[in-house]
Amino acid sequence: MIIMKSGATKEQIATVIKEIENYGLRADVSQGDFRTIIGLIGDERKIPFDHFAILPGVKEARMVETPYKLISHEYAKLAGESERRIIKVGDIEIGGDELVFIAGPCAVESKQQLFKIAEGVKKAGAHMLRGGIFKPRSSVHSFQGLGAAGEDEATEALEWFREAGDRFELPVVTEIRGESQVDLVARYVDIIQIGARNMYDQDLLVKVARTGKPILYKRHFGAGIEEFLSFAEYMVAENNKDIILCERGILPLGKGKSYTRYTLDLAAVPVLQKETYLPVIVDPSHAAGRRDLIFSLSCASVAVGACGLIIEVHHNPIEALVDSQQQITPDELKKIITACQDIHKAIGNK
Amino acid sequence: MIIMKSGATKEQIATVIKEIENYGLRADVSQGDFRTIIGLIGDERKIPFDHFAILPGVKEARMVETPYKLISHEYAKLAGESERRIIKVGDIEIGGDELVFIAGPCAVESKQQLFKIAEGVKKAGAHMLRGGIFKPRSSVHSFQGLGAAGEDEATEALEWFREAGDRFELPVVTEIRGESQVDLVARYVDIIQIGARNMYDQDLLVKVARTGKPILYKRHFGAGIEEFLSFAEYMVAENNKDIILCERGILPLGKGKSYTRYTLDLAAVPVLQKETYLPVIVDPSHAAGRRDLIFSLSCASVAVGACGLIIEVHHNPIEALVDSQQQITPDELKKIITACQDIHKAIGNK
Amino acid sequence: MIIMKSGATKEQIATVIKEIENYGLRADVSQGDFRTIIGLIGDERKIPFDHFAILPGVKEARMVETPYKLISHEYAKLAGESERRIIKVGDIEIGGDELVFIAGPCAVESKQQLFKIAEGVKKAGAHMLRGGIFKPRSSVHSFQGLGAAGEDEATEALEWFREAGDRFELPVVTEIRGESQVDLVARYVDIIQIGARNMYDQDLLVKVARTGKPILYKRHFGAGIEEFLSFAEYMVAENNKDIILCERGILPLGKGKSYTRYTLDLAAVPVLQKETYLPVIVDPSHAAGRRDLIFSLSCASVAVGACGLIIEVHHNPIEALVDSQQQITPDELKKIITACQDIHKAIGNK
Amino acid sequence: MIIMKSGATKEQIATVIKEIENYGLRADVSQGDFRTIIGLIGDERKIPFDHFAILPGVKEARMVETPYKLISHEYAKLAGESERRIIKVGDIEIGGDELVFIAGPCAVESKQQLFKIAEGVKKAGAHMLRGGIFKPRSSVHSFQGLGAAGEDEATEALEWFREAGDRFELPVVTEIRGESQVDLVARYVDIIQIGARNMYDQDLLVKVARTGKPILYKRHFGAGIEEFLSFAEYMVAENNKDIILCERGILPLGKGKSYTRYTLDLAAVPVLQKETYLPVIVDPSHAAGRRDLIFSLSCASVAVGACGLIIEVHHNPIEALVDSQQQITPDELKKIITACQDIHKAIGNK
Repeated sequence: MIIMKSGATKEQIATVIKEIENYGLRADVSQGDFRTIIGLIGDERKIPFDHFAILPGVKEARMVETPYKLISHEYAKLAGESERRIIKVGDIEIGGDELVFIAGPCAVESKQQLFKIAEGVKKAGAHMLRGGIFKPRSSVHSFQGLGAAGEDEATEALEWFREAGDRFELPVVTEIRGESQVDLVARYVDIIQIGARNMYDQDLLVKVARTGKPILYKRHFGAGIEEFLSFAEYMVAENNKDIILCERGILPLGKGKSYTRYTLDLAAVPVLQKETYLPVIVDPSHAAGRRDLIFSLSCASVAVGACGLIIEVHHNPIEALVDSQQQITPDELKKIITACQDIHKAIGNK
Repeated sequence: MIIMKSGATKEQIATVIKEIENYGLRADVSQGDFRTIIGLIGDERKIPFDHFAILPGVKEARMVETPYKLISHEYAKLAGESERRIIKVGDIEIGGDELVFIAGPCAVESKQQLFKIAEGVKKAGAHMLRGGIFKPRSSVHSFQGLGAAGEDEATEALEWFREAGDRFELPVVTEIRGESQVDLVARYVDIIQIGARNMYDQDLLVKVARTGKPILYKRHFGAGIEEFLSFAEYMVAENNKDIILCERGILPLGKGKSYTRYTLDLAAVPVLQKETYLPVIVDPSHAAGRRDLIFSLSCASVAVGACGLIIEVHHNPIEALVDSQQQITPDELKKIITACQDIHKAIGNK
Repeated sequence: MIIMKSGATKEQIATVIKEIENYGLRADVSQGDFRTIIGLIGDERKIPFDHFAILPGVKEARMVETPYKLISHEYAKLAGESERRIIKVGDIEIGGDELVFIAGPCAVESKQQLFKIAEGVKKAGAHMLRGGIFKPRSSVHSFQGLGAAGEDEATEALEWFREAGDRFELPVVTEIRGESQVDLVARYVDIIQIGARNMYDQDLLVKVARTGKPILYKRHFGAGIEEFLSFAEYMVAENNKDIILCERGILPLGKGKSYTRYTLDLAAVPVLQKETYLPVIVDPSHAAGRRDLIFSLSCASVAVGACGLIIEVHHNPIEALVDSQQQITPDELKKIITACQDIHKAIGNK
Repeated sequence: MIIMKSGATKEQIATVIKEIENYGLRADVSQGDFRTIIGLIGDERKIPFDHFAILPGVKEARMVETPYKLISHEYAKLAGESERRIIKVGDIEIGGDELVFIAGPCAVESKQQLFKIAEGVKKAGAHMLRGGIFKPRSSVHSFQGLGAAGEDEATEALEWFREAGDRFELPVVTEIRGESQVDLVARYVDIIQIGARNMYDQDLLVKVARTGKPILYKRHFGAGIEEFLSFAEYMVAENNKDIILCERGILPLGKGKSYTRYTLDLAAVPVLQKETYLPVIVDPSHAAGRRDLIFSLSCASVAVGACGLIIEVHHNPIEALVDSQQQITPDELKKIITACQDIHKAIGNK
């Protein structure tokens, strides 16, 4: 990390960046109100910090050993940035004072289904619309989303999705699963989701980050906090700081029957907030895998400090093509939103 | 399970019990308002249910295959008992409409320390006092609690504990760790705790259950829900239904640094409540292992539906001999109790 | 699954395939000596099996519910294929009677380093050369392999790799990490590796499978056997049956210090062999993460039934840029190969 | 740890011990050929090492921070003891040059069953006889072993067990599950087993260690290596160094069907051997939970360096009252012993 003096000139900054690149690393430049911080991206052990420390305009040059630093509070603070990042999507603020509810079907099944659910979640008080077009599935023999049928079908589904979002004034978020979907999806949606199974897919992370779109980034079910944040760093290293972290459950433990699909790690929410300035939301639907727990887990997520929830909603859950047993109705969503907002007040927010 | 006819006589019931014992099993008899249910304890595959079905006074005789049945809602319902068990300790109801807060030091260190903390938690609004006298420790080279010094020292510490409870009108709960401590501890405390490391210790469970005291029973950090409930069944099979289940965190998962000591499995709370009529509380202190998360995890525990919390409190946490980094002050406890009670209202209880 | 009669004509088979495609599924056609088996790829619940059962030339039509079926022994047997698949790469047979040793550096660092190690492993008795050009890394701040520097650098490294393989008569295997690397890498190597972190990346699996190259497919450290095989099925569904399964360790469990990087799940080897006809090898290097365990784990892998090993070797391990603490010398490799071949005889193979 | 000078007198040693006890700790005295080492048992932070360093006869006094030290190679070395402990039971050496096979039924069911199996395992080449009389079971509704019926029945079963051992010249090992069984069992058996579920039960460990009998100590399925060794230290702190460590599988990981009961952690074998001088054996039966994997896992256990195996054998496995699906026949045991001895040679032992 190179901290420039408060009066450092553009030329001095440019010289430092060029030097960094000479050593095979990249530079992340944060222009604060008072000074400029240059984060190093790459193997810092190659850098002679003593040499950098005496370049004109440099105040301090030192190694940062943690695998995630661009997303740390320390880095934000040095750069004079806010302690928590608020990501604006239309009128919605993720990470701000108000809770954000993202809701919609697991998979987009038809235009009619999508519009019906979009209308339902809007009325229930949701702020954004979710819906899967490219579905990651454990089995090649399962429904893979409308996007699997070909580019035309994917485009059509994305057009419905965009239209539904516009009609009901709900910014839209959908998952991409492979590099070849990035350009297409980025044209239609407000937020791109990277799902749990792709958390470690660093080439995909880089490509999605370069679209400049906000990213809803889910923790893999086998990932520790350190790995989750280290991979999030890949995206911020592409100069995209609009990363929303999402806890959605880790592998269940113990012999015998599993009563939930995954173990929701709610302590991860405050831990992530202490380690990084990125906003944190929770997906109770995939963690539970059963609708009778969604209310309780949603309340707990907000109580533990999440700034939002992403919940699967279907107007007729038992007919849903994917994950039917975990989707709730718009009416149930409404009850959840009401209880969560009360809890949000009780813990002293807003 | 044998369901007797509503007018079955005492003699008929006695005959059925005797027959059960002839087959090497034991009988758990529940006298409901309308009829009597006889649960079988032992290997039901040895029982000729057809034979039992035609005994005088028997309405129905059938096998129940689940490893826990005496603690299930179905069994309570058949026996005409309440859907949730309320355990009364003095004026306190565990599992009732009000949240119950159990607080106190990790380890009893001295009479002075204990009284100071007891006074503090009482003022903060706690309902019961906890404190360890026999401490289970991973290392033989760590402080094992005052009880380790010998029976006299253990007795003295238990007397302080009883006295503190009486003085501040706080029922008291302490852990026993081995069979030889059962009789001594049972003489002094209101609730006996069986800690996570002893969850599987079936001989200990049986011995503690036979004291007739309410038992605070913690889930082992490697135990699934099914195992936890199957071992709880050992105690109910001794005709002690006053079992308080406690979630305190499971093994953390994932590479790299652990940010919490254990992973608090909050979904376990509603799952346990759906599987059994026993009340469920949460211990956020051992799960977190760090005090800056206790507030958030306490709020989440109540939001997810726990009927109480057990929290480690010390008047001067950094001086505590055991687990100093996870104990909070009475002032912090007070804030937690206030927030939790607001949340309890928000989710529709009381 | 559709089983055709032994005398079914090409036209009858074509009709069945067309019908399958009409329902939105794909067909995997296995021509056995006596009859043809048509596996369905996609959601079989959409298929009216009664209708298929009466099509001309059809002997039997039925649903197979397991998420992996194209790779099962049952399917191979019905299709008249061998119980175990032997994958030939040049003169080497993977899954045959002889053990196969794949060895080489974690990362290709320079032409000189590569050739030195290739020569060393050849002399030690290895059959194939491994070496990473695109390295998946937990931290964006770590060395990502020579391939990260750009397409020219990647091409140059691949050319060295091919040349080293040819010079020392060692077929070569390297990992690809993202979709954009597939075409380039496929031009140079004999086997493409899909690493543990990409195990779930179904779009990548499909793209790699379509190259027609044999694939060394590593189990993710959080994946159960069922998931591992279900994702392998994605590749076989692209008509590429040359999949080598590789166990490389799962997440370590338990509190406290980790003594190995991952937990090598050696029972997975015979379990996988019982579930599928695909050959199974073991990577002890990444599992252990320390070189003093490689000998023991290699011996155990062969004793449990693995048909080969992939081991990281460096002529000067402590200077290696990546994973230096787990690489062994060619001399150590030689000792391992000798002991493993003795064990292979002891367990009754060859 | 206090290292005495080579010529230290008995009085000087006694003085040091007394001082240690004055500080509330205990002393473990190892008399080597050249000098005496005094290990401290308890919280070393209470000890003023500077004060001890200047006592007459003391060469060195320093803190050892690891939670296990009495069982470490370093401690053995300082005390002039062997690098690996060989535990002699009759003519059998556990931890010596020859592999040791312990075999027998999961549960003792009758005298006839026991003698039939004892004869079978003797002929197959086993060295010791195992058999459960007090069975730890997940369900109170399962068969708990003959010992559960009462003290008379337990005594009778133990007498059969002793008699079978004597008749077939097989030292005998059985599990104790609770403190009240210790005295009775110790009168009859050569080795006492502490099962996985009781691994953390420190009061039980102490009581069993005090019998002076060798102890077969199984790792809990949720325990890391550090915890396993830290709890083993409890027994050595009672001056019983005849502890045989046993790996028997840890919790399985990953979604979906479990193909084995537990995950056998074979790397634990060499890791334990590097951390302690205690001998290490493996129990493949409980890890696998299915008999078709016992051969492979036994071979792998020996290949990884185990000095013995404990295997469940039944003359008619499908009739076994407990764990019938994992027990093998004496004939299968014979094949395993033969293959394992070949492997033992192949890896360079004897």
